[in-house]
Amino acid sequence: MITVLFAHPYPDRSRANSRLLKAISDLDQLEIRSLYERYPTFDIDVEAEQTALRVSHTIVWQHPMYWYSVPGLLKHWFDKVLVRGFAYGEGGVHLLGKRCLWVTTTGGDLTAFTSGGLHAHSFSSFVPAIEQTARFCGMEWLAPIIVHGAHKISDAALDNHALNYRNLLQSLGR
Amino acid sequence: MITVLFAHPYPDRSRANSRLLKAISDLDQLEIRSLYERYPTFDIDVEAEQTALRVSHTIVWQHPMYWYSVPGLLKHWFDKVLVRGFAYGEGGVHLLGKRCLWVTTTGGDLTAFTSGGLHAHSFSSFVPAIEQTARFCGMEWLAPIIVHGAHKISDAALDNHALNYRNLLQSLGR
Repeated sequence: MITVLFAHPYPDRSRANSRLLKAISDLDQLEIRSLYERYPTFDIDVEAEQTALRVSHTIVWQHPMYWYSVPGLLKHWFDKVLVRGFAYGEGGVHLLGKRCLWVTTTGGDLTAFTSGGLHAHSFSSFVPAIEQTARFCGMEWLAPIIVHGAHKISDAALDNHALNYRNLLQSLGR
Repeated sequence: MITVLFAHPYPDRSRANSRLLKAISDLDQLEIRSLYERYPTFDIDVEAEQTALRVSHTIVWQHPMYWYSVPGLLKHWFDKVLVRGFAYGEGGVHLLGKRCLWVTTTGGDLTAFTSGGLHAHSFSSFVPAIEQTARFCGMEWLAPIIVHGAHKISDAALDNHALNYRNLLQSLGR
């Protein structure tokens, strides 16, 4: 099973994320969990989330970048679901060896992510916190799918990302 | 006015954070906003938060590090409060020139924050996302107060951090 944690507060207003999601939504053995729709008051059902992870071989975190990180609800999901005894520490072996795929979109194009640009840092400066969250839980970190300039990217380029996403998940599904 | 956004989900269980907070709580012209107590269901009153920021010359983000970042509710606060038209973009001038102080505690000691250590990265690798959030809003980024090994740090060392924190805020208060 592949579990996709989808964190977009306004899925209806999303162009890039909804297109990416649509490209994978009919795959077999895949469940999309739309966190903002499932938990509008942030009352995450920790047991249900952990059960979904237990039966998965691949875990996807898909979201737009907000303030150089994941949206608040996905961060809250990290805090509540990836706890000692489940994800790390004594007995915390339930994510060990599972694959983690990060799929994210940014508003700015790559020139914004330079030392002289709007964001003053390369995009890679913002990766360690996310990547190390997965690695600390013993997950295998796959090469992420990053869609820059999501507001203005062409349909063709977006379709290309979506197809890569689909092909990758398909190749992992078993 | 100095506004302290305090984000600890279990303030009663905190040793380091509560000690730090206690050291500054009687300062004049300072307001502590305990986010997890104020917003247990994450329904942030955006207008009240923005009003608190408008009247402040210094904004403090104080929290334990969770998954190499801020706790979920403070991340949600970033997403909801630091919005276009208030914090950046057209008309978004309300944080311009204000000071931002980051005060945080970590569980691991500094040896965990090395390429061969438990966290596989230096602590500084996790700073850009927080720092750039402040800088993108035009705030002046002060040298942060970072308390490592918060679970086992001695009372004396913790008191020293607390005193530094108090002295710094006192010197900024006017």
